[in-house]
Amino acid sequence: MVRIKFNPYGREIEVPDGENLLEAVRKAGIFMDTPCNGSGACGKCKVRVISGNIISMSSKNITETEKKNGYVLACQSIIKGNAVVEIPETESSSMHGMKIEDFSSSREKDIFNDSRERMLKSGMKFGTYVKKEYLELDPPTLDDNISDFERLKRHVKKQLNYNSVFCRLPILKKIPKLLRKADFKITITHIPRGKEKTTIINIEEGDKTKELYGAAVDIGTTSVAACLVDLYNGELIAKASSGNAQMKYGADVINRIIYSTKGSGLEELNHAVIQETINPLLSKMYMDSGISRDQVVSFVAAGNTTMSHLFLGVYPNFLRMEPYIPAFVKTPFIKASELDIEVNPETFIYLVPSVASYVGGDISSGVLSSGIWNSEENILFIDLGTNGEIVFGNSEYLMTCACSAGPAFEGGEISCGMRASGGAVEKVSIDSSYEPTLKVIGQEKPLGICGSGIIDLICEMMFAGIIDRKGKIVRDLDTNRIRFDEHGIGEYILAFKEQCDLERDISITEVDIDNFIRAKAAIYSGITTLLKDLSMDFTDIDKIYIAGGIGNSLDIGNAVKIGMLPDIDQNKIHYIGNSSLMGCYLTLMSEDARRKLEEIANSMTYVELSVEPEYMDEFVSACFLPHTDIDKFPTVKRCFNKSV
Amino acid sequence: MVRIKFNPYGREIEVPDGENLLEAVRKAGIFMDTPCNGSGACGKCKVRVISGNIISMSSKNITETEKKNGYVLACQSIIKGNAVVEIPETESSSMHGMKIEDFSSSREKDIFNDSRERMLKSGMKFGTYVKKEYLELDPPTLDDNISDFERLKRHVKKQLNYNSVFCRLPILKKIPKLLRKADFKITITHIPRGKEKTTIINIEEGDKTKELYGAAVDIGTTSVAACLVDLYNGELIAKASSGNAQMKYGADVINRIIYSTKGSGLEELNHAVIQETINPLLSKMYMDSGISRDQVVSFVAAGNTTMSHLFLGVYPNFLRMEPYIPAFVKTPFIKASELDIEVNPETFIYLVPSVASYVGGDISSGVLSSGIWNSEENILFIDLGTNGEIVFGNSEYLMTCACSAGPAFEGGEISCGMRASGGAVEKVSIDSSYEPTLKVIGQEKPLGICGSGIIDLICEMMFAGIIDRKGKIVRDLDTNRIRFDEHGIGEYILAFKEQCDLERDISITEVDIDNFIRAKAAIYSGITTLLKDLSMDFTDIDKIYIAGGIGNSLDIGNAVKIGMLPDIDQNKIHYIGNSSLMGCYLTLMSEDARRKLEEIANSMTYVELSVEPEYMDEFVSACFLPHTDIDKFPTVKRCFNKSV
Repeated sequence: MVRIKFNPYGREIEVPDGENLLEAVRKAGIFMDTPCNGSGACGKCKVRVISGNIISMSSKNITETEKKNGYVLACQSIIKGNAVVEIPETESSSMHGMKIEDFSSSREKDIFNDSRERMLKSGMKFGTYVKKEYLELDPPTLDDNISDFERLKRHVKKQLNYNSVFCRLPILKKIPKLLRKADFKITITHIPRGKEKTTIINIEEGDKTKELYGAAVDIGTTSVAACLVDLYNGELIAKASSGNAQMKYGADVINRIIYSTKGSGLEELNHAVIQETINPLLSKMYMDSGISRDQVVSFVAAGNTTMSHLFLGVYPNFLRMEPYIPAFVKTPFIKASELDIEVNPETFIYLVPSVASYVGGDISSGVLSSGIWNSEENILFIDLGTNGEIVFGNSEYLMTCACSAGPAFEGGEISCGMRASGGAVEKVSIDSSYEPTLKVIGQEKPLGICGSGIIDLICEMMFAGIIDRKGKIVRDLDTNRIRFDEHGIGEYILAFKEQCDLERDISITEVDIDNFIRAKAAIYSGITTLLKDLSMDFTDIDKIYIAGGIGNSLDIGNAVKIGMLPDIDQNKIHYIGNSSLMGCYLTLMSEDARRKLEEIANSMTYVELSVEPEYMDEFVSACFLPHTDIDKFPTVKRCFNKSV
Repeated sequence: MVRIKFNPYGREIEVPDGENLLEAVRKAGIFMDTPCNGSGACGKCKVRVISGNIISMSSKNITETEKKNGYVLACQSIIKGNAVVEIPETESSSMHGMKIEDFSSSREKDIFNDSRERMLKSGMKFGTYVKKEYLELDPPTLDDNISDFERLKRHVKKQLNYNSVFCRLPILKKIPKLLRKADFKITITHIPRGKEKTTIINIEEGDKTKELYGAAVDIGTTSVAACLVDLYNGELIAKASSGNAQMKYGADVINRIIYSTKGSGLEELNHAVIQETINPLLSKMYMDSGISRDQVVSFVAAGNTTMSHLFLGVYPNFLRMEPYIPAFVKTPFIKASELDIEVNPETFIYLVPSVASYVGGDISSGVLSSGIWNSEENILFIDLGTNGEIVFGNSEYLMTCACSAGPAFEGGEISCGMRASGGAVEKVSIDSSYEPTLKVIGQEKPLGICGSGIIDLICEMMFAGIIDRKGKIVRDLDTNRIRFDEHGIGEYILAFKEQCDLERDISITEVDIDNFIRAKAAIYSGITTLLKDLSMDFTDIDKIYIAGGIGNSLDIGNAVKIGMLPDIDQNKIHYIGNSSLMGCYLTLMSEDARRKLEEIANSMTYVELSVEPEYMDEFVSACFLPHTDIDKFPTVKRCFNKSV
């Protein structure tokens, strides 16, 4: 065994001689964002060897200067003796493994209110299935000496008119001491089923009938967002979001699924999303609001089908093997205590049902909150998270498909990419001397670039003449912002390291641009294929809703110009934010919404793009800026003509 | 902190300077039977200090010779520095904290068969609520690509004709891998509710329909007995019993309740009965039978009301405080995984309902198996375990009461007392020269004396003239078996230490005899009080059934002669063994039996002896051998006349 110490954390662990350094980082409980999951490709697990015997393979991701200064890729390094290693502090690594931030902004609040209004207008009523009642029991005497449990049930039956009253062991354990402490004046939280039966899920001292809370969580592959809600009036009590701690095991669902098949991989992934992501978000919200865990008695979560499997700890490997079968789409009855989720242990965990292996509960939830199911117009719904799912339809029908877009819209597989959080470049413009102007989230010094920033950047580079329509950087331009490496791969520098106190410039490479073009092409070709299946075209689209983690600052015009979205009237295109979280919120608040959600998940028709003959052609044609056929993008054509 | 090492275990732990030595023994995970729970009264926590600084109070339980040899009472000793201490090996302490032994004997097998026959004769049918079915699912294809979970449910609905099929998370987790490993040919275990609904609680590979097992457990205050049953044919697969590991926290329910109120006492008591007692018994039975934990899908347990509370981890303290309220008498729905009981995690834990604070599920269960509820004759049922409960009645009515008899019938509060297990003296006769003949369980050298042995011993001492009718030892008899200590307290030596390789003679003291007389008087006066309440007397008793841990070798004649049982025709008195375990077995095997059991628990009328005015007088009169009024015992009177 050898000892290895990690700075600046001061954590020290023992590992076997010959251990992989990235493994050791994980064992020490330190979070590193490793999108390629240890293949050496992404270069994100860069660490600095301060002292000790560590043997590393050379890598194109480590410059000569970095090498001289002791930098290595952790995943390409083997520990051969005691060592001290420094983990660079970056956006995605912090003392507790992640940053947690609020996601409130006035724009998001508007979106939130819109969604709520839409629900109420559609005729759905507020009203959760969890109820509270204040009760004053008769204290026991020698003559009235039935057990505490029966006394409680007797009173609930009599006062609330139920024939059967159930309650489980954790509540029974609370009863004897609490009843006496409360002088037999208590508040019960219960879940009626019909008019005959009810189940008590909590008891509290005194009158607590006004304190009834629920939590909603959107489990994204890259980001997780949560909110705490007052179930009486629908008020948002607290909000929080962070990266999904599963990122250390791979950036996209396929890498996560592969990791789940290895040793205790499934347990680690489950632990990462619940213990390292969701529970810290809940704790943060409890701290912000002063609400206690025990008062949270309703819970709704949504995620894609893989995230849903990993959330429950269910083996997901058959999702990626023909015939692509999920273990489940609708979950059984699960209590919070079974998953160690930090809400009241008796809380029922509602995981929004999936549609198919690659269209998950997040899409069902997004469709609910966007109101497509209630619309007479044809609406195209696009979720731009990791991958990218599309729904097209109206109140009569709903078609859906999944695009293999990868994590690029959330900054994944982009060398300086990051989530739309503090320090991310969210807007870019480039002037005629190739100089960029950046807008950074939180007004901070830039740390990286998020999805909306990349769209702007590629669009601006195209119109500034920095890249051609294949995404290749033009040679011999008069600027110090462009450079080429020894292999001839070009990059454009958005921010020099001196500007942003980083060890490395923030730049976009031709490889990044290529990755992003394939991502946007996957979306565009998904849209065209789905419409063709319905014998429709862009003129049949009345509205486009964009949802997902791409960021608040998405410039829809630019998204059209790079050929991600069809070139239709841009007034028809709207960014609707995290529609999945919104759907979870509505489900928390309304039993009508929950029923509608189940109906939506059941009724959506799934189209498997990989078996559609024309999809591949559509994709290849879309791997251009904006498209091989520029006539499909008259707006872009006009711009080019103008600038010529 | 100081280090303390325990021989012969070789265990070493660190404890704070000043720690109580008995506490340290417990912290080291070493089992000691401490009936008085550390008050210094019982003298059972004797240990030997080999080296080190340990300060002990002197005690009447330590002889001068013992003191010279380093013996101290652990509970009366304080650790003041590093030390090495030897724990004497006794019946109740072994490497794993307890001995586990079979309890099969031909007599018990007869009792078992009788009980089963009685049930079948009463018209109850065998048939458990847990069912198994072999299913061959259609493997998924691209066209039939519903989820695994829905595929299973679809098939169960179709083939077994249910409208609703439920199953919980642990089963869902098993499904994806198991279905494929089994080539979609599986056996489900399920629990139907009516004809419409069923819940799947296990899935297995291939056809396992013939493997369906259940476990029954009687949780006594002193002893725990368990059996493993084939649910198809009722065959007993394995049996095991052991001491209740809670004994280290006190011999009787009152001491246990008090311990539960201290710090983590409740959790420790719960851990002791489940992790240190029931689970080892289950493991032993799995080892003996080759059956795996997962195949055990039904579980029934019974215990007195305090044991029931501690089994579930429910605070029992209000049981002993006026108005003596149990937290529950009937339990909610509980799964094995909630209590960490080592059967299939989805198994429903059925704990037999109690009647009142001091008449528990063990009595309900005993009444079921004894068949009183179905008898036209008046039957008196007496459970001689720790304490002692009485039921009187027939098919028309059932009256019950609890006697404060303490643990004497199971060897508790008797200086050389022990459970009826290997090494216990179970039968005694004494000849005219005051020499005893002993029968020892397992033909071993004697280690102590159990309840049936004590009854014989007291009876024989009385007729041999060794004790008078108050239980006092007669002075100046010509035998080396009698001696008196410095306080004048006499004792009779059953076995000299040289005979049995012990550090101390096996003897009975006047204090022990006094304790036992009070125990038998509690039973006798309980019987008379209950009958008086009904305006009846002994002539109304058609049969007496004796149940409980007193031991197989109970000599009924002697029990009458010492005045524990009424002096009626002894052909009417029968020992029926562990009727509580038998009732659990019947409940496992038959839904009819379970319904009857609930009916029994609901319908029994509880009489609180402590508020009955004549009870105290009856008790005092019974504190004689056999009674202050010898005319109530004509048999004994005749014997005395004969011997005179």
